[in-house]
Amino acid sequence: MFPNKKTPLLDKIKTPAELRQLDRNSLRQLADELRKETISAVGVTGGHLGSGLGVIELTVALHYVFNTPKDALVWDVGHQTYPHKILTGRRDRIRTLRQRDGLSGFTQRAESEYDAFGAAHSSTSISAALGFAMASKLSDSDDKAVAIIGDGSMTAGMAYEAMNNAKAAGKRLIVILNDNEMSISPPVGALSSYLSRLISSRPFMNLRDIMRGVVNRMPKGLATAARKADEYARGMATGGTFFEELGFYYVGPVDGHNLDQLIPVLENVRDAKDGPILVHVVTRKGQGYAPAEAAKDKYHAVQRLDVVSGKQAKAPPGPPSYTSVFSEQLIKEAKQDDKIVTITAAMPTGTGLDRFQQYFPERMFDVGIAEQHAVTFAAGLAAAGYKPFCCLYSTFLQRGYDQLVHDVAIQNLPVRFAVDRAGLVGADGATHAGSFDLAFMVNLPNMVVMAPSDERELANMVHSMAHYDQGPISVRYPRGNGVGVSLEGEKEILPIGKGRLIRRGKKVAILSLGTRLEESLKAADRLDAQGLSTSVADMRFAKPLDEALTRQLLKSHQVIITIEEGALGGFATQVLTMASDEGLMDDGLKIRTLRLPDRFQPQDKQERQYAEAGLDADGIVAAVTAALQRNSKPVEVVELTTKVTEDMTL
Amino acid sequence: MFPNKKTPLLDKIKTPAELRQLDRNSLRQLADELRKETISAVGVTGGHLGSGLGVIELTVALHYVFNTPKDALVWDVGHQTYPHKILTGRRDRIRTLRQRDGLSGFTQRAESEYDAFGAAHSSTSISAALGFAMASKLSDSDDKAVAIIGDGSMTAGMAYEAMNNAKAAGKRLIVILNDNEMSISPPVGALSSYLSRLISSRPFMNLRDIMRGVVNRMPKGLATAARKADEYARGMATGGTFFEELGFYYVGPVDGHNLDQLIPVLENVRDAKDGPILVHVVTRKGQGYAPAEAAKDKYHAVQRLDVVSGKQAKAPPGPPSYTSVFSEQLIKEAKQDDKIVTITAAMPTGTGLDRFQQYFPERMFDVGIAEQHAVTFAAGLAAAGYKPFCCLYSTFLQRGYDQLVHDVAIQNLPVRFAVDRAGLVGADGATHAGSFDLAFMVNLPNMVVMAPSDERELANMVHSMAHYDQGPISVRYPRGNGVGVSLEGEKEILPIGKGRLIRRGKKVAILSLGTRLEESLKAADRLDAQGLSTSVADMRFAKPLDEALTRQLLKSHQVIITIEEGALGGFATQVLTMASDEGLMDDGLKIRTLRLPDRFQPQDKQERQYAEAGLDADGIVAAVTAALQRNSKPVEVVELTTKVTEDMTL
Repeated sequence: MFPNKKTPLLDKIKTPAELRQLDRNSLRQLADELRKETISAVGVTGGHLGSGLGVIELTVALHYVFNTPKDALVWDVGHQTYPHKILTGRRDRIRTLRQRDGLSGFTQRAESEYDAFGAAHSSTSISAALGFAMASKLSDSDDKAVAIIGDGSMTAGMAYEAMNNAKAAGKRLIVILNDNEMSISPPVGALSSYLSRLISSRPFMNLRDIMRGVVNRMPKGLATAARKADEYARGMATGGTFFEELGFYYVGPVDGHNLDQLIPVLENVRDAKDGPILVHVVTRKGQGYAPAEAAKDKYHAVQRLDVVSGKQAKAPPGPPSYTSVFSEQLIKEAKQDDKIVTITAAMPTGTGLDRFQQYFPERMFDVGIAEQHAVTFAAGLAAAGYKPFCCLYSTFLQRGYDQLVHDVAIQNLPVRFAVDRAGLVGADGATHAGSFDLAFMVNLPNMVVMAPSDERELANMVHSMAHYDQGPISVRYPRGNGVGVSLEGEKEILPIGKGRLIRRGKKVAILSLGTRLEESLKAADRLDAQGLSTSVADMRFAKPLDEALTRQLLKSHQVIITIEEGALGGFATQVLTMASDEGLMDDGLKIRTLRLPDRFQPQDKQERQYAEAGLDADGIVAAVTAALQRNSKPVEVVELTTKVTEDMTL
Repeated sequence: MFPNKKTPLLDKIKTPAELRQLDRNSLRQLADELRKETISAVGVTGGHLGSGLGVIELTVALHYVFNTPKDALVWDVGHQTYPHKILTGRRDRIRTLRQRDGLSGFTQRAESEYDAFGAAHSSTSISAALGFAMASKLSDSDDKAVAIIGDGSMTAGMAYEAMNNAKAAGKRLIVILNDNEMSISPPVGALSSYLSRLISSRPFMNLRDIMRGVVNRMPKGLATAARKADEYARGMATGGTFFEELGFYYVGPVDGHNLDQLIPVLENVRDAKDGPILVHVVTRKGQGYAPAEAAKDKYHAVQRLDVVSGKQAKAPPGPPSYTSVFSEQLIKEAKQDDKIVTITAAMPTGTGLDRFQQYFPERMFDVGIAEQHAVTFAAGLAAAGYKPFCCLYSTFLQRGYDQLVHDVAIQNLPVRFAVDRAGLVGADGATHAGSFDLAFMVNLPNMVVMAPSDERELANMVHSMAHYDQGPISVRYPRGNGVGVSLEGEKEILPIGKGRLIRRGKKVAILSLGTRLEESLKAADRLDAQGLSTSVADMRFAKPLDEALTRQLLKSHQVIITIEEGALGGFATQVLTMASDEGLMDDGLKIRTLRLPDRFQPQDKQERQYAEAGLDADGIVAAVTAALQRNSKPVEVVELTTKVTEDMTL
């Protein structure tokens, strides 16, 4: 595919400042070399490929035209920045992408001064860039802030909130709308249709358009009425009224792979006397790499691949993923119950709802990147008598948190939440970890919170949710595959708030929530072998807690361990709080809670992240050992030595 | 003002069905009577007045034209629904508004079948109505869903997310944009300028416009290009292109106080063959009540008032509110440090930033109802070297939760959060309670979380935040007034993670976070009198916890009480978790945590809500007494009787 592997021009460029010294005519070659290098790197590491290939020329042009890092580039999501990383002093580490101690797969401020703002979730770039632009204005600087945002990201409310506030930043804010008519999946919603109409209704800007310098000649001094007429007229001509009504000057569409157009447009925009300006750049995801261009998902995210053929390394065969078990069970439920409907926020494949959609196209709603709407839309469907399953990744449900509280929990509406990618997620790192959902759900009145210990349990829980109408209910499950148990036969309706005792011992009790059960059983084997007879319970429910089982276990064992794949505030807190409410600790209780640590864990292999967090058999055994080694002694009331604060104000 | 107090027509109307039997010509009189009744009721109860008066005619017209409750009215925010409540069977209880066991000040599903969806936070109505509309479509019903949303609420991202998805609902979804050019404060942002231009650019729809039945004659069969041309042409004529680009038919503007126009327009829209339709209705907040019309805030929310003069009952004089102490201290800091900037989301008065704005108009940003943007915009400003104070109510910060995690905490950016209305808030009830911020903030790595025990402490904390640059930091404080301590003299920079011992005892230790300190000291007096010598600590920091002080207190007392104005997962969890991590409970520890209960508490007087939650001196004394009455006995290992689950799948 690339017989000439050499990248002589790229080899010479160590920084964007050096890039800016190049003759404009050599930028085409640089872009070609950058594309080659990007494909080669992702071939080694795997990762996001299609979106990076789509912005090769844009990346070159931005660093050529703008004075980075003084001018701040704020990339939305950040998964398209591998080429940007190569150009900004990180080429030597580009083959460490997404690996432990390697480069992040997203932008990260700690990694480079050229990453003005870290990202990974979508649609934050205009808000952040507006912060930079206003700081520039307050400091009387001329530094620009450039947000680069995809059409998919534009469907999120926060992008709109930012645009609605952008006017005040004036010429210091530039938004590049990188329109590839696709985010991860085909786009949805009215904005996306609108953008398509924009593109199809007129040709790309040509050199004459650009030379006219439309933006520079904006009628600043005209009276309002005349200006408005002019704006409408421009709207008719360019079709850009939507953005102009939000206070932007619209420039475009521009061919994002044609440097001869891209660079003069960006120069024009950079030097404009008024703003903010939105540049509508049209790109093709996977551009310039035949296997990616040919693929339906344009190689959005790939495994390591053979660069020439484009063939990706296959995952070893194994049990089905939790996602697919969820999806298949939900299809079964929906065949029985036509009130079941599903909602995803731009993640039909990631949540398995693409399969559901094949069976029930009318009953699956992809709302785009719009989690706030997804949750309240589900609440509306529930209020109207339907049974919505709102299917989101744990980390993205954070976007719908207020809606979860205000529209679902307070109204006690039976919305079913399928919370995928709960717990640690591996190569995507801290921004994508599902660390907090347990904590932010268990303290909501009316919520039921479940976590399955294996894939059959997940199927049972989905079956139970389909039959639970009393209020909101959720199930959280991890990234990755099940443990290999059979999925055959009838599924159970689980009694709400009841766990199950898996193994009976006498000395140590492990209360496990979720898929750490496997590690808990391993730990129990090892503890038994040490003479520490160990009970293990699969608690199933973080809320309502199985209080009877918990009470029994706490009263009948010397050491209690709780384990969960979540941060402080979730299952452990439920157990500790119940124990203290009931006075179960009054007379001594060696209870230790294993949970995610109070730090953001960087990218790594998923199992290594868990080991680092102490959430594996080793961690359990170590916690038990440490607890037993701590000498018990009768309560000794020591003297309180702290002085009373002197400057008492009460 | 209203010499004739009689409401003969209104007296006859018990339900909307009866309203629909009225002759159209008598609706004007009904509206006038409804206005009188609304003013009279709010005169007694206090509450939201201006917005209800603005929708008197709209409320009458909607119930007249639509077949409520089969057609679902979804009121945004819901504080404008007192007239709606009067017309839907709740007139006999309208003078119990916002009181214990009385009517809610917002819509509430439990209260009436005419409240299709509960609200109180803004901008949820289109999403919820879309849920109803899609349910109607899936059921092959013709029921309509009507969202009524203010222009201020339109600035929130979730309204946009919903509009972007509305197309699929077709004619079953109707959005009434109730444009009073004002939410709580004067409006901000590009959308609001756009709406003003729309209104000023053309007269209200006249009867001829309406009779032409624009919507019914939409060119359904036309080819796309022609349709598009038509849409642009209509955009030019009506100026409605913004909404049309989002897939709506735009109808308006309509005079929202003229029933002769409002009713035919709504009938036309109800019977339209295509949709969704947005009706732009122009109203005046406070309409028809001279004191409200004359007031700057149009009597958005009032105390009880004398109906004739419009004079409001004055709050008794007392110490300054926490809000004003915060604001005054921040102004002092900003005078010393020109990097300090502030952000509010449509709450300049509520957060005290209106005062800040008087001193530093360039350094205060009101972003409208847009909390997601507020948080990330603040993060951008921090990344660019400024010191942003992001000032939000606790309950509204929930809207910016993902941004708090992803843009602030993960990047460890020094954004200062001033979290107002933390804890219980009285008459606004569960939707406005600041119950969860402690819990959702303490488990974020890098966060510092403070809560002052009095107003001087708050000033100290604001001073400390101005000088803290290492990462994100927050202070949370309640609705209401301080305790009356002096604010004179220099403010302190508090050492991070250090509490203070207020009172030294021997038997009981109360660890208090926040303004429950006053009640803690009262409880200590009573416990001392019972011979239970009591220590009290003002912990100041929920995170990082003062571990040294906590350890000392736990080791040197027999009963430990924690108290905070927040739900499970906050301060108590920090203490319990540290105690279990360190094995401090291994040998027995009577620890009891007082926190908000696991239910949504309804509206009531603030102090009564706290009493009900057990968060006062009585509650503390009761908890200590119960803990001591529980007989201590040596650890007794009981037999584990639970059977091992038989259908083991592992």
